[in-house]
Amino acid sequence: MKKIEGGINAAKGFWANGIAAGIKKRKKDLALVVSQKSCTFAGSFTTNLVKAAPVLWDQMLVKESDSVVALVVNSGNANACTGKRGIEDTRLMAEITAQAISPLGYPARKEQVLVCSTGVIGVPLPMETVEKGILWCTENLRDDIEAGSDAAQAICTTDTFSKEIAVEVEIGETMVRIGGMAKGSGMIHPNMATMLSFITTDAQIGKATLQSLLKESVVDSYNMISVDGDTSTNDTVLVLANGMSDCPFIDEQSPYFETFKEAFMFVHTHLAKAIVRDGEGAGKFIEVTVEGAKDKATAQNLARSVVSSNLVKAAFFGSDANWGRILCAMGYSGSEFDPDAVNLSFSSAKGTIDVVKDGQPIAFDETKAKTILLEKEVSVYAEVGSGTGTGTAWGCDLSYEYVRINGDYRS
Amino acid sequence: MKKIEGGINAAKGFWANGIAAGIKKRKKDLALVVSQKSCTFAGSFTTNLVKAAPVLWDQMLVKESDSVVALVVNSGNANACTGKRGIEDTRLMAEITAQAISPLGYPARKEQVLVCSTGVIGVPLPMETVEKGILWCTENLRDDIEAGSDAAQAICTTDTFSKEIAVEVEIGETMVRIGGMAKGSGMIHPNMATMLSFITTDAQIGKATLQSLLKESVVDSYNMISVDGDTSTNDTVLVLANGMSDCPFIDEQSPYFETFKEAFMFVHTHLAKAIVRDGEGAGKFIEVTVEGAKDKATAQNLARSVVSSNLVKAAFFGSDANWGRILCAMGYSGSEFDPDAVNLSFSSAKGTIDVVKDGQPIAFDETKAKTILLEKEVSVYAEVGSGTGTGTAWGCDLSYEYVRINGDYRS
Repeated sequence: MKKIEGGINAAKGFWANGIAAGIKKRKKDLALVVSQKSCTFAGSFTTNLVKAAPVLWDQMLVKESDSVVALVVNSGNANACTGKRGIEDTRLMAEITAQAISPLGYPARKEQVLVCSTGVIGVPLPMETVEKGILWCTENLRDDIEAGSDAAQAICTTDTFSKEIAVEVEIGETMVRIGGMAKGSGMIHPNMATMLSFITTDAQIGKATLQSLLKESVVDSYNMISVDGDTSTNDTVLVLANGMSDCPFIDEQSPYFETFKEAFMFVHTHLAKAIVRDGEGAGKFIEVTVEGAKDKATAQNLARSVVSSNLVKAAFFGSDANWGRILCAMGYSGSEFDPDAVNLSFSSAKGTIDVVKDGQPIAFDETKAKTILLEKEVSVYAEVGSGTGTGTAWGCDLSYEYVRINGDYRS
Repeated sequence: MKKIEGGINAAKGFWANGIAAGIKKRKKDLALVVSQKSCTFAGSFTTNLVKAAPVLWDQMLVKESDSVVALVVNSGNANACTGKRGIEDTRLMAEITAQAISPLGYPARKEQVLVCSTGVIGVPLPMETVEKGILWCTENLRDDIEAGSDAAQAICTTDTFSKEIAVEVEIGETMVRIGGMAKGSGMIHPNMATMLSFITTDAQIGKATLQSLLKESVVDSYNMISVDGDTSTNDTVLVLANGMSDCPFIDEQSPYFETFKEAFMFVHTHLAKAIVRDGEGAGKFIEVTVEGAKDKATAQNLARSVVSSNLVKAAFFGSDANWGRILCAMGYSGSEFDPDAVNLSFSSAKGTIDVVKDGQPIAFDETKAKTILLEKEVSVYAEVGSGTGTGTAWGCDLSYEYVRINGDYRS
């Protein structure tokens, strides 16, 4: 597997574009991704009981459609809490897109168009603007790197940078590509929160295999990140596979399954971590690894509890080696471990320092700890026993900036 | 029931004192409460897997002792993550207290002394200082209001004010008193977080009744408050009843049971709310009431999810009528309700404003909303259906100050 330049349209036969349609005041706000051949696809969605209209639409497609051809995404408006009108607007977005791309050589029914929206909630979509935007966006669909970047920019909201990734992996003797883009920022929490992540690949892979692979990937990537503990109404991960690489068909019995899976997981994990790095007001990227738990789920739950703790996050903001809050956060995670068996260390590019041994603090050099924790990327390593379960979660610090952004967002 | 002046030593036969023993640099840090007659008692403790030594001690007493005589509390050091030495130090604190008060007319074994500690974790107690402090503290035990206040001050950590309450209630023809003190501030979350709350009463009531009453009270008071979502290693609520009012004996069959229960709940709820008002860096007090849920537990869970949301809290900091975040927080609470049946309003001393009807936003006057939300005390009222379940939770906003306090705490 090799990282290559590019993003959502890096795989063969995927075209993309992103434009400023006018939903936001100035910035890009509408992205389109289409495939020359119809795609198998898979989706994973927010667990929030309050679901935006496009989430309901995509969930229906995942359940009822065999293939899709396009993905249309707007930012600036989430089309959430918009009632029947919201449902109708999502359907319209799919229909307009299908009608616009069909004459261009991408024949599609509306049930072959995935739709996502992100932005403010409770405000109906400006459909006239959206319609014009979709038509305009289709005119300049391209497979170059710049077009992928435009699309990646168009799905952003409060993101400070766009998030893209592409890899190449050999399946049999064929080079297969997997590309993706994501948006994140606020409300990122385990169980997927206001984040969108889209992956395309030219691998040949069935819908059921893709869905089961996605399910497994989500557990170890998006569900292991936390910015602020809130889970949104619009979170969506979608994967499209058009088979155009003509690689050997991939299923769970295929000799290439593990190779593909590894690359697929890499792309998801890369995008999940990029989302955290861009957490609202985040100044530090924090990786927490738990080892020695009785099983993987326990380790993951402990790690997640640490990156989700406001007190831990505030301590990282202050570059404070506050091991007590980490122990405490593991303690209330709901998962079992032996507090008296915990070993804890902090590390960064500046080195490693042990702070807890067998559940009790050990004397450590505070100056050295500060030097380590002042770095932008900091790791916590926690041994919690002699089990085989390990898990890693990613988060960020809690800053003044987070409070400022979120105190002001709507007003 | 009538509110009266006083606190932890308002009930007959309870004496108290609070002093600066030297565990903290300057402030009061050691409190003692003793009863002229031995007390029935009850306790409720943190659910954190990592439990401080005094929590383990008090849990053992609740399980194995029939009566207690005294309560000793130190602030400045939590005696948590201190291993075997911590366990021994707690036992010593009980023993020193028992030996110090016995000659003064409060005969006690160490198993009759409840112990609490709060403050930094992972540092052994300075036992010489603690011992001298206990001896000194016993010398000036009093039943006046000032002594109660001294005790209330001595249990504080980052609290900006001490929390006391006392009420008088007629049981049969006898006036019974219930008094209490609490400390809170950071890490306050449902399921009880770094908070201590102590209640004394001169009612005649059995240990089992007291324990079941306390269990019920905790659900509606301390478990319905949230400052920052973290649950600590030391949270404790203790109740002591010495029977010295000579009121009719209270049990669940007693005609006075409900009267006593009401006063008892009032005291707990008052202290819980005082803890939230003093949340670290809190500028606003937020009350969230959910009605129409299918049952009480559902309503309480929905209300708690709203007051615990960082995004909701940050919105209140910005006095922003961000109803979307409230809907969203209810949506990921894990409890069921019909999003399309939700009505939402904000209110304060400046009036009430409806913002959501049947799950969708309604046009409202943003200026009026701002005026309402700029108040120090703000209420959210959410109807979520036609069920009979109601629940109220209390929280505070998320401020720059919270981040500052918690970024700096240990260093």
